[in-house]
Amino acid sequence: MQNYRFDIAYDGKDFSGWQIQPNAPSIQETIEKALRLLCKQPIRLMGSGRTDAGVHALGQVAHAKCPLPPSLKSLNGILPPTIRILSVTEVPFDFHSQYSAKSKEYHYHLCLEPVLSPFKRGFCWHIQQPIDLHLLEKGTEAFIGTHDFTTFSNQANQGSAARNPVRTIKRITLVEEEGGIRLEFEANGFLYKMVRNITGTLVSVASGKLPLMALPHLLAARDRRKACPAAPPFGLFLFSVYY
Amino acid sequence: MQNYRFDIAYDGKDFSGWQIQPNAPSIQETIEKALRLLCKQPIRLMGSGRTDAGVHALGQVAHAKCPLPPSLKSLNGILPPTIRILSVTEVPFDFHSQYSAKSKEYHYHLCLEPVLSPFKRGFCWHIQQPIDLHLLEKGTEAFIGTHDFTTFSNQANQGSAARNPVRTIKRITLVEEEGGIRLEFEANGFLYKMVRNITGTLVSVASGKLPLMALPHLLAARDRRKACPAAPPFGLFLFSVYY
Repeated sequence: MQNYRFDIAYDGKDFSGWQIQPNAPSIQETIEKALRLLCKQPIRLMGSGRTDAGVHALGQVAHAKCPLPPSLKSLNGILPPTIRILSVTEVPFDFHSQYSAKSKEYHYHLCLEPVLSPFKRGFCWHIQQPIDLHLLEKGTEAFIGTHDFTTFSNQANQGSAARNPVRTIKRITLVEEEGGIRLEFEANGFLYKMVRNITGTLVSVASGKLPLMALPHLLAARDRRKACPAAPPFGLFLFSVYY
Repeated sequence: MQNYRFDIAYDGKDFSGWQIQPNAPSIQETIEKALRLLCKQPIRLMGSGRTDAGVHALGQVAHAKCPLPPSLKSLNGILPPTIRILSVTEVPFDFHSQYSAKSKEYHYHLCLEPVLSPFKRGFCWHIQQPIDLHLLEKGTEAFIGTHDFTTFSNQANQGSAARNPVRTIKRITLVEEEGGIRLEFEANGFLYKMVRNITGTLVSVASGKLPLMALPHLLAARDRRKACPAAPPFGLFLFSVYY
């Protein structure tokens, strides 16, 4: 058996998320089935972390021990076109997609145009109220650094390893793109729904529903009920995992 | 009655093309039905030209005589999210989306990466053989200028006004974009399937299947059977109509 790293992109629309669950099509299970076909034995694929139902990935990373090198072309031939293996790399036996990760980058896309392009539909959150980008940027400052993010995390599902709610956000960068902006989040790790909860709260600040000054208090409260509604999943992309 | 100009974007995937036809969902018919609901009378919507089944638009233009100004918000509220009216403008009574047009611009997107991103699927032609971009660019030169494009046009459907097969291509520009290139075509008009036929032939030249030298002879032959297979519709976007 050798250890292989898989770099993966997927359109999350048709999936119940990364993680295997009963009676719902997950990305993990779909790829495991393809690997089983190729390797002629059950293969366990471990991802760097789960992504929720509807969340997309440009650079998810997973690893699996396989008895022979899985061919990129064969894998993509079996998988639906909404899941693409970008590369298969043999890695040291102790490489672990989750535990070896040093940091992760997520992008959240906001469309700020009055009319949502049919080509962005399903890949951004269409904000229809006026947004103050300066307030949005000021808002990000409250989150950068090391904090207890309990307020901005939903209860993790059973079986999650995430018990410690402290994370370090290295940067949140606003980048203008055609018709809107994207928020780039880089952190040593993210709690369950953390990016979507922070984004939802930032949009509340930027649209004048929540005062900027409230953000440090929300963080300090460590109470999920204090945060604003989460941003929808389809605007979120797992962009990259760094090792 | 006033004359209104509609700027329209659509994802062509689910439609049989712009033009109304029996037993198939067209973009023209879908918008006419929405206008009829708003104006409470049958409205005839005239497009700058048809786009084929599966072809997309970022800047289709149409006009219609309406008894009252159709509200952008109401129209988009009725239409499926795959068709978006970008703007409604009152224009002089003699403005005609087709006959007033001076030129049009189409973009054809080619993906040249080994693996097709799930996010580009349906919006580009995935070329899996090696492509010589220099040859592709040299190939475009044969088409620029005023030519009889019979070789690169399919038989137009009945009722088409296009009898004269001479068109002037002002430019064909290769633009590098992430993971591939796009071909920008600007001409005073295009024959039925002309962009897809030229693109298919250019890709044949760039992949070594057809010598560059053959292009002037193909044009001179004025025989559709001499051209290479057309490029697929889903890589093509009507980008803009100029007046």
